[in-house]
Amino acid sequence: MSKLRIGLGVDFHQLVEGREFWLGGILIPHDRGALGHSDADVLLHAICDAMLGAAALGDIGTHFPDTDMAFKDIDSKILLQKTMALIEAKGYQVVNIDATLCLQAPKIKPYVPEMQAIIAQFTKLTTGEVSIKATTTEKLGFVGREEGVVAYANVLLEKV
Amino acid sequence: MSKLRIGLGVDFHQLVEGREFWLGGILIPHDRGALGHSDADVLLHAICDAMLGAAALGDIGTHFPDTDMAFKDIDSKILLQKTMALIEAKGYQVVNIDATLCLQAPKIKPYVPEMQAIIAQFTKLTTGEVSIKATTTEKLGFVGREEGVVAYANVLLEKV
Amino acid sequence: MSKLRIGLGVDFHQLVEGREFWLGGILIPHDRGALGHSDADVLLHAICDAMLGAAALGDIGTHFPDTDMAFKDIDSKILLQKTMALIEAKGYQVVNIDATLCLQAPKIKPYVPEMQAIIAQFTKLTTGEVSIKATTTEKLGFVGREEGVVAYANVLLEKV
Repeated sequence: MSKLRIGLGVDFHQLVEGREFWLGGILIPHDRGALGHSDADVLLHAICDAMLGAAALGDIGTHFPDTDMAFKDIDSKILLQKTMALIEAKGYQVVNIDATLCLQAPKIKPYVPEMQAIIAQFTKLTTGEVSIKATTTEKLGFVGREEGVVAYANVLLEKV
Repeated sequence: MSKLRIGLGVDFHQLVEGREFWLGGILIPHDRGALGHSDADVLLHAICDAMLGAAALGDIGTHFPDTDMAFKDIDSKILLQKTMALIEAKGYQVVNIDATLCLQAPKIKPYVPEMQAIIAQFTKLTTGEVSIKATTTEKLGFVGREEGVVAYANVLLEKV
Repeated sequence: MSKLRIGLGVDFHQLVEGREFWLGGILIPHDRGALGHSDADVLLHAICDAMLGAAALGDIGTHFPDTDMAFKDIDSKILLQKTMALIEAKGYQVVNIDATLCLQAPKIKPYVPEMQAIIAQFTKLTTGEVSIKATTTEKLGFVGREEGVVAYANVLLEKV
């Protein structure tokens, strides 16, 4: 039987005025930000969920419940670090990550290399094994109306 | 060439009053349920579609058309069983499944272990190889308005 | 470390009257078509993005920007060909592709074999390694209102 496991994470957050906009571990200058109990980093949350899912370890809501004050306004990089520790404790390493951000604005391309470096560091990968893509929804739906942001992350794990 | 194949299933159903709510093979107490020709189990349908897609065997609509009275109100566990037989006939076994339910309510966490056990049984996996995650859409879109439910499933197959 | 890499592509286009409807490399008879800078083939774009993501080579917007007149009205099969050249230059071959189209109408099942043949040709696969599935959103959301079309593509690559 293969030692590989695949996981898919999907995450949603509202975009509202008066919030900082954290994406992929960094602060993005924008006129609104994602709403949530933590820093609401939709990209890191999708990656965490994909890692947990591939290892069949529950989901981000199981491990970091939004009813727990310990996670209030928490930096999602800490959640990624904790997630990595969970999958390593089960004997897994990450092979590669491919994530897609769906948001109408702003353009995130200038920030991608820094996001890749952060995610690679926390998941013990090289930046050449971490992909971050972005797309608008062509003005369609709640993403197109800039009411929200969605992230998908696909992760491949390998049993060491 | 690798003996592995990946598949991704996506399924949508409307939520309406007066229907039973079947998810992951079990009946969920709720004030509405998913509308469909079969029991409308969005989670099992996404998993079937991911399995069929990984094996390039068409999709759930090809094999179990909603115009065929043989599938009217059918228990989707039977569709999962038939899907497993189709991929086994092509020489595949399942390596792991990672699925995500997007629904605003109710909380499905209490039901996850039973869903995992059912899906594991029909796909010849252990429960440690079947992951079921859940997320709200943070009130966004048709899922947020409780008009519908979406499921994504990622499946890894291996040629025996 | 595994020589496999996974990628997930997601693409969105508006559907409008007065446009040709290109899907999977072929022209689909329909009363509207997808809007975009290129031929707006949502299925091929999702596949290109999944391939680029798995190889951590950026995304379709990086390589084929919609601000570049070289790509105005371009046949997306050319983008798929260029994408294949990019991943081959990095030492990858494609193992399998599983894509899902989300659209309310028309039924695309009759066109699937031709789409599979085209995609297989450009990605150096057999048609048995290319899966194209389709689903409606059960009238939900912008896809259900026939305002848009969405495609998801999952791709497995292997380092040669």
